[in-house]
Amino acid sequence: MTPSPRIGLDIGGTKIEGIALDPAGDIVARALVPTVPGPTGVLQASGDIVARLIGESGLARAEFAGVGIGIPGQVDRATGTVRNAYNMGLSSLALGPELAAAIDLPVSVDNDVTAAAVGAASIMRLEGTVAYLNLGTGLAAGVTVDGAPVRGADGFAGEIGHLAVDPRMRPCPCGQRGCLETVASGSALKAHWPAGGEHPGRTLNAAVAAGDADAKQALEYLIDGAAQTIRVLGLTVNPGAFVVGGGLRLLGAPLFDGIRAQLAEWAAASEFIAALRFPERLQVLPEGSPAAAIGAAIAVNE
Amino acid sequence: MTPSPRIGLDIGGTKIEGIALDPAGDIVARALVPTVPGPTGVLQASGDIVARLIGESGLARAEFAGVGIGIPGQVDRATGTVRNAYNMGLSSLALGPELAAAIDLPVSVDNDVTAAAVGAASIMRLEGTVAYLNLGTGLAAGVTVDGAPVRGADGFAGEIGHLAVDPRMRPCPCGQRGCLETVASGSALKAHWPAGGEHPGRTLNAAVAAGDADAKQALEYLIDGAAQTIRVLGLTVNPGAFVVGGGLRLLGAPLFDGIRAQLAEWAAASEFIAALRFPERLQVLPEGSPAAAIGAAIAVNE
Repeated sequence: MTPSPRIGLDIGGTKIEGIALDPAGDIVARALVPTVPGPTGVLQASGDIVARLIGESGLARAEFAGVGIGIPGQVDRATGTVRNAYNMGLSSLALGPELAAAIDLPVSVDNDVTAAAVGAASIMRLEGTVAYLNLGTGLAAGVTVDGAPVRGADGFAGEIGHLAVDPRMRPCPCGQRGCLETVASGSALKAHWPAGGEHPGRTLNAAVAAGDADAKQALEYLIDGAAQTIRVLGLTVNPGAFVVGGGLRLLGAPLFDGIRAQLAEWAAASEFIAALRFPERLQVLPEGSPAAAIGAAIAVNE
Repeated sequence: MTPSPRIGLDIGGTKIEGIALDPAGDIVARALVPTVPGPTGVLQASGDIVARLIGESGLARAEFAGVGIGIPGQVDRATGTVRNAYNMGLSSLALGPELAAAIDLPVSVDNDVTAAAVGAASIMRLEGTVAYLNLGTGLAAGVTVDGAPVRGADGFAGEIGHLAVDPRMRPCPCGQRGCLETVASGSALKAHWPAGGEHPGRTLNAAVAAGDADAKQALEYLIDGAAQTIRVLGLTVNPGAFVVGGGLRLLGAPLFDGIRAQLAEWAAASEFIAALRFPERLQVLPEGSPAAAIGAAIAVNE
């Protein structure tokens, strides 16, 4: 991390979370505002939260190295353009240059899961090869090596949720069938357990405990898909740690005990898989960690 | 590449290929010797080929920065130890320190596919994220970012051949079933087309052309597994290029036309997959390129 203060924003479909880091990398200001969909709304809300963070930090605007943004969708880091961030009404926006012009600070843009992977490695002080797995509305992953993200060629790194592996072959909005995201994600949970309503993650554990068969099945799919994702990442880049983030991690023990049990079952069937030590290497991002905002701030001026 | 001459060895089950690079990275000496199985044989043959390369290079031993080795099996780069390289009779050997003591030069050791990935990116001048796919006796892959390998935590990076994905569920020596390596590798080819003998890759195209149904099936499996491997790598790290190396690449057009057709079929079914541009990004390592030896030399003193 370079020794200048910087700001990080995690722009999501419902809220924008922002933090300011001092030169030591400690959080000196934090703010949360609702997302206003569409290009004008996103730019206006982002500019407002940056102004608030600067004000609360007690530092002058000119002292900041810049603003880093993590946002869903396909991001072209070279031009600061984000595409296909449909859940916030953006089909294509030159977010980096437009926000930079509005706030008079350099702006760098990353995919939100890439930013969260960088932030998670920093928060959890993980060196070497680390895989970050985001169990949110969708399923995606990020790989870091000594804290630096593997970004790939054109903003699709970590789109492992669209790996078609599930023999049930459920249709995915991406056009394929049987994608991991149709098994292990918030949207999959809704599809498999319609009674769970808009936020099934909040009541799933209680429903499973009460014997709801659909809820139990949905949790089993989630466990199976997450374990499969860890196996794919493990056999591709051999991470020393797998960190699970995203809202569904708050399911806690019922989810993680299940994932570890599945990974241990595979290890029991193969010495080769056992040597990869998947169950021991599984970690959970602590609740309340603004990983994507911190990672976006770290990626400023990289 | 640092400005000192260096030596690279690619130690395989049947031969050891060695090269010496001058400070500009050009090959100034090249040698090939048969592999003598077992620890003593491997060390002796490696020492001999290093002496020959130094002699042919016209440079003094003391001018060399060191010797890099690419070898199959699980490699601990920190200690220079190789384990489970069964096809050359090595269960565990401290290859780095033992060879260094014998030849009086620093020795670094890498997995052969990792070394080949580094070498392929260098030979083909590929920047950014590159996936190297080795279709040899086994199936493995290496990922590089700007020429540097993603090594992972403990020498298993790129063991994607042991990703269990095949619904035919054929047993794999690793203890699992349905591994990609049971579909797309030299050993898979032998299993699916026993009439092909010890080196089925040499006669497969002719047998397919002559209408041999088993040969045709074996080629189809190979195409399918290679295409699946590319898809997994693509959705995990989004490489800008996929380079195929290994002996089976010499099957040429029947193999690569088939892989491209499968990748194009998936792209036709999904705009998302189409955007990843798999067919255009598929490249073949030129015949006769000593990729693993060059990559091992590059990795000296990294």
